[in-house]
Amino acid sequence: MIGPRGDQDWLAAAARLASRGRPVSAPNPAVGCIIVKQDRVIGRGWTRVGGRPHAEAAALEQAGQDARGATIYVTLEPCAHESDRGPSCADLLVAARPQRVVLAEVDPDRRTHGAGIARLRRSGITVETLPSPAAAASLAGFLTRERLGRPHVTLKLALSLDGCIALASGESQWITGEEARAHCHSRRAMSDAILVGGGTWRADKPRLDVRLPGLEDRSPQRVVLTRGVPIDGVRIINEPAQIDRLEAAQYLYVEGGAGAAASFLAENLVDRLDIYRAPIVIGGGKPAFGNIGLADLTSAHGSWKLVERRQLGSDCYEAYERQRS
Amino acid sequence: MIGPRGDQDWLAAAARLASRGRPVSAPNPAVGCIIVKQDRVIGRGWTRVGGRPHAEAAALEQAGQDARGATIYVTLEPCAHESDRGPSCADLLVAARPQRVVLAEVDPDRRTHGAGIARLRRSGITVETLPSPAAAASLAGFLTRERLGRPHVTLKLALSLDGCIALASGESQWITGEEARAHCHSRRAMSDAILVGGGTWRADKPRLDVRLPGLEDRSPQRVVLTRGVPIDGVRIINEPAQIDRLEAAQYLYVEGGAGAAASFLAENLVDRLDIYRAPIVIGGGKPAFGNIGLADLTSAHGSWKLVERRQLGSDCYEAYERQRS
Repeated sequence: MIGPRGDQDWLAAAARLASRGRPVSAPNPAVGCIIVKQDRVIGRGWTRVGGRPHAEAAALEQAGQDARGATIYVTLEPCAHESDRGPSCADLLVAARPQRVVLAEVDPDRRTHGAGIARLRRSGITVETLPSPAAAASLAGFLTRERLGRPHVTLKLALSLDGCIALASGESQWITGEEARAHCHSRRAMSDAILVGGGTWRADKPRLDVRLPGLEDRSPQRVVLTRGVPIDGVRIINEPAQIDRLEAAQYLYVEGGAGAAASFLAENLVDRLDIYRAPIVIGGGKPAFGNIGLADLTSAHGSWKLVERRQLGSDCYEAYERQRS
Repeated sequence: MIGPRGDQDWLAAAARLASRGRPVSAPNPAVGCIIVKQDRVIGRGWTRVGGRPHAEAAALEQAGQDARGATIYVTLEPCAHESDRGPSCADLLVAARPQRVVLAEVDPDRRTHGAGIARLRRSGITVETLPSPAAAASLAGFLTRERLGRPHVTLKLALSLDGCIALASGESQWITGEEARAHCHSRRAMSDAILVGGGTWRADKPRLDVRLPGLEDRSPQRVVLTRGVPIDGVRIINEPAQIDRLEAAQYLYVEGGAGAAASFLAENLVDRLDIYRAPIVIGGGKPAFGNIGLADLTSAHGSWKLVERRQLGSDCYEAYERQRS
């Protein structure tokens, strides 16, 4: 850490803590909290498995009596509703008597939505709402569920330089190298559910699990998009819009094939593209997806923004986020 | 410049000077030369328009008497053959009496090929040959001509994220933004000749010129790949292999369309890919090229190496070089 930190830096740090709760915090949002006093961190917390303890409760537990007079950074408005799993975070914060609470997002959950902030202010605590891109990104799954009633959708593509996902013969193992495939498994581990189309399910018999040492138990729920017969151990949906039925899922990871990719894109249900691009040229291979209903080039521009690019061995990983106005 | 420079750094610096001669040095190679004495640069030269003066002659002219006892870095072996355009660089160097000459590439031209080095050594000058990736890259056009009897070929592609060069309707203006298109014009200006297929020529009526302020006179020779009728002011070749007939051209820039791209790739005549990738998704559009005769995925790997990546506005520019074993 170089130089003094401002509120935005502390919120970004809280967002990084929050990411530790993805996706295991479900059904709760993955929240991060940092308690700072005289420029020193005295408490850190993030939402744990199954949603408890909450980030604020964990951070306050660490800080103890020192929380009095401190500044508390939290990525989401503290909850104002008691549950049978414990007191509300707003009540815990009032009891801890910090001087100031800086939060990034007002809780869209109707049970809180401003009530947490009001309770803190009534008790004399200064509360500031400071929009933070990092915090918003760390809450993408929760915010997408609240606002759009469905999980946040990432479409993963493994492509050649010329945008093919396989040879014309269907051969697709492997386009990318080991590092890219391991990275893809880490992205699976950050998802609640993973989806492929029925054609890919039948052709490739994919395991769709997480094969990273220590993360084997983080394999997400498997979902197949098909109008076909039920499959043992797999959730079936008949069309992309039915992802709203994946109740607890905040993050859905769509791995193809071309038909599933096109149908999600055509219905504007993709929030993020995870592209792994290998330095190979195929030529006349299978394209990543077919028609998605694009009318003209002008309307294609402005929809996607690069948010991450990194080299993974000889492959390049790029993430693009859907821009919604 | 930070820290002391070694021989490799000086050769790389000479290679950067050499690039100033691309492509205007034709029919001569674009050579760079730096003369260093007690860690100070006392002479710099590069091959000028039409091939004269040579890089060494220009650098020696700057250094004057101080060249005595200096170290001379040059990207290509000094020529040993006199021409009616002046004395050989080997003779000029012998007269200047440097202590040491460090060169990156032995001249494949049979008239010199080692004779330059021999003449310097006979006169008591220490000569070292030090392979330099930067120098080799700066001589790519000349070396490709000497070794393969044809110009160095760059294939340019402007793609969507999913590898399309146009909508299915053919609409292709514009995939990329202004900065990428200006960069492409700067690459045109570094080429001796620019080629499109007959279909693209007829459909798009491209001007294929350099529209950058101050570089308008650097528009390369225009070449069309077609079996059709002659076109005024344009060189015609019937098949990719006929690029060996473009006598003076060291650098050929191929801009498409899909058919021309595929035929150059299928005949293994592409040395570099210049890819401009826009953050747009098309879906079911026109692919960059069709079948190039790839048998399986394994044989696709290892052929291309990323040598440059940079952001140009919202587009990404990547250059890949063909790896030939």
